[in-house]
Amino acid sequence: MKTTVIGLGLIGGSIALDLRKAGLATEVVGVDLNPLNAAKAVELGLVKRIENEGIAISTADLIILAIPVNALSQLLPAVLDSIKKKTVVIDTGSTKRMICRAITNHPNRGQFVAAHPIAGTENSGPEAAFEGLFRDKTNIICEREKSSEQALTLADRIFATLGMNTIFMEPEDHDKHVAYVSHLSHVSSFLLGQTVLDIERDEKNIFALAGSGFASTVRLAKSSPEMWAPIFEQNAEFLSQALLEYIMHLQKFQYYLMKRDVKELSRILKDANRIREILNGIEYKQIKQVQEK
Amino acid sequence: MKTTVIGLGLIGGSIALDLRKAGLATEVVGVDLNPLNAAKAVELGLVKRIENEGIAISTADLIILAIPVNALSQLLPAVLDSIKKKTVVIDTGSTKRMICRAITNHPNRGQFVAAHPIAGTENSGPEAAFEGLFRDKTNIICEREKSSEQALTLADRIFATLGMNTIFMEPEDHDKHVAYVSHLSHVSSFLLGQTVLDIERDEKNIFALAGSGFASTVRLAKSSPEMWAPIFEQNAEFLSQALLEYIMHLQKFQYYLMKRDVKELSRILKDANRIREILNGIEYKQIKQVQEK
Repeated sequence: MKTTVIGLGLIGGSIALDLRKAGLATEVVGVDLNPLNAAKAVELGLVKRIENEGIAISTADLIILAIPVNALSQLLPAVLDSIKKKTVVIDTGSTKRMICRAITNHPNRGQFVAAHPIAGTENSGPEAAFEGLFRDKTNIICEREKSSEQALTLADRIFATLGMNTIFMEPEDHDKHVAYVSHLSHVSSFLLGQTVLDIERDEKNIFALAGSGFASTVRLAKSSPEMWAPIFEQNAEFLSQALLEYIMHLQKFQYYLMKRDVKELSRILKDANRIREILNGIEYKQIKQVQEK
Repeated sequence: MKTTVIGLGLIGGSIALDLRKAGLATEVVGVDLNPLNAAKAVELGLVKRIENEGIAISTADLIILAIPVNALSQLLPAVLDSIKKKTVVIDTGSTKRMICRAITNHPNRGQFVAAHPIAGTENSGPEAAFEGLFRDKTNIICEREKSSEQALTLADRIFATLGMNTIFMEPEDHDKHVAYVSHLSHVSSFLLGQTVLDIERDEKNIFALAGSGFASTVRLAKSSPEMWAPIFEQNAEFLSQALLEYIMHLQKFQYYLMKRDVKELSRILKDANRIREILNGIEYKQIKQVQEK
């Protein structure tokens, strides 16, 4: 099975590594617009070689798309135009509505599986890729009923090989949930970083005074703008709702702060403490994962 | 040197552990309002025994105060009233203006050192205490000129024993900086957690969709309300400024989001990326610390 991975960054590179290791793909070739990233991906052994995009698409049995979501929405129809009869195309985009909409009436829609394997770090590019990134994480498949049985069966094998647990959602539900659970976290982190940079012109102060708490909260502000700006745009509606609610919470907090109402502030903090159980569950998964390595 | 630690949680307990291990204190006794915490602290070997507060204060050579900042501001004048002539009192509060103000004209002001050893985790109570919590972290001493030479010399030894790097600041500067670099991170994390809890009544969805990025950003929402509500109140003025600026950044971001202005969104994210170097420095410190253990 010839596999083409388009986009050789953290996600595409890590998928390529796992598929090569599992022997699932007889040949893994790569495509990347950035020639430096492409060369690096070969050097690091993520893919066997780089191929011309047109050939890589028209000759593949399996195509993994791991490029920014704006490029994805544009490229996907052309990919479905050019593939062989039994080729399966799987995307990995962090938004699903716009992507599904882009090919909803395409004659080859059945050959496509709309997926979102939820994994990543704040790092990007081929050097950020590593084996096992996806193990024990959740994968979401949207519009399952629009994919052919053959395409779903292959996607199943791929995500099982990555060690993922797949669940099914509608694109609208997916985008709404990730707006709150992922995209809002990223925005809050980017802008927290910016707020501190604004006030602390002398960066030595941040360095001296910042503890591990600050580092943890602002870690996502290191993420790639090229990847995240298009995600935010494609999910603007839900993300904007989430932002509004977040801002309302912040303003309410500030109101009680200005009133020096410690009792109400305590109540707000105690309410938020309920997140503890959920976080302990996530940490438990992570610890289990580390132990199994 | 008889040492009394008042408040046997994460901070007080960890200081007690390090001082006992270094042999700096011949006897470390503890005081805690909560009898369960007090018993636990003895069981865990944080302190040798629990003593009545009055006796523990009047017979100590060194007193470490590690209680919530509202209790600290109230207790500190009484502590300075009751100590021996050469006893040194060191606090560990996360705010410094209100605490320094509470004893500014006290006849024994010179025996007090206003300190803020910047370290911690999202956990609290005696079971959260551990050896080496403070190693390679920053300690801030405020109003150095109001402490006696004898008190400063002992404080120096204490913080050197903990492995900390001490810097000096005025209480006003301290409170302003930590509002941005620490307190704002905590508020943003608590309210991000609350925003997600609000929308995701079905907690199974959060659990499945939340990745390590969410966990990292919301980790501080697990922190103790009893400790943090008083900190926020004592630093209400600066924290409120910081919150306003953060909210302005969020609103500006939302404006460009609604306009689908990807170029401007990218620019904002790229600006925030400058935090990367600072965070890499903090991570480097943390890695170094782990390796040295």
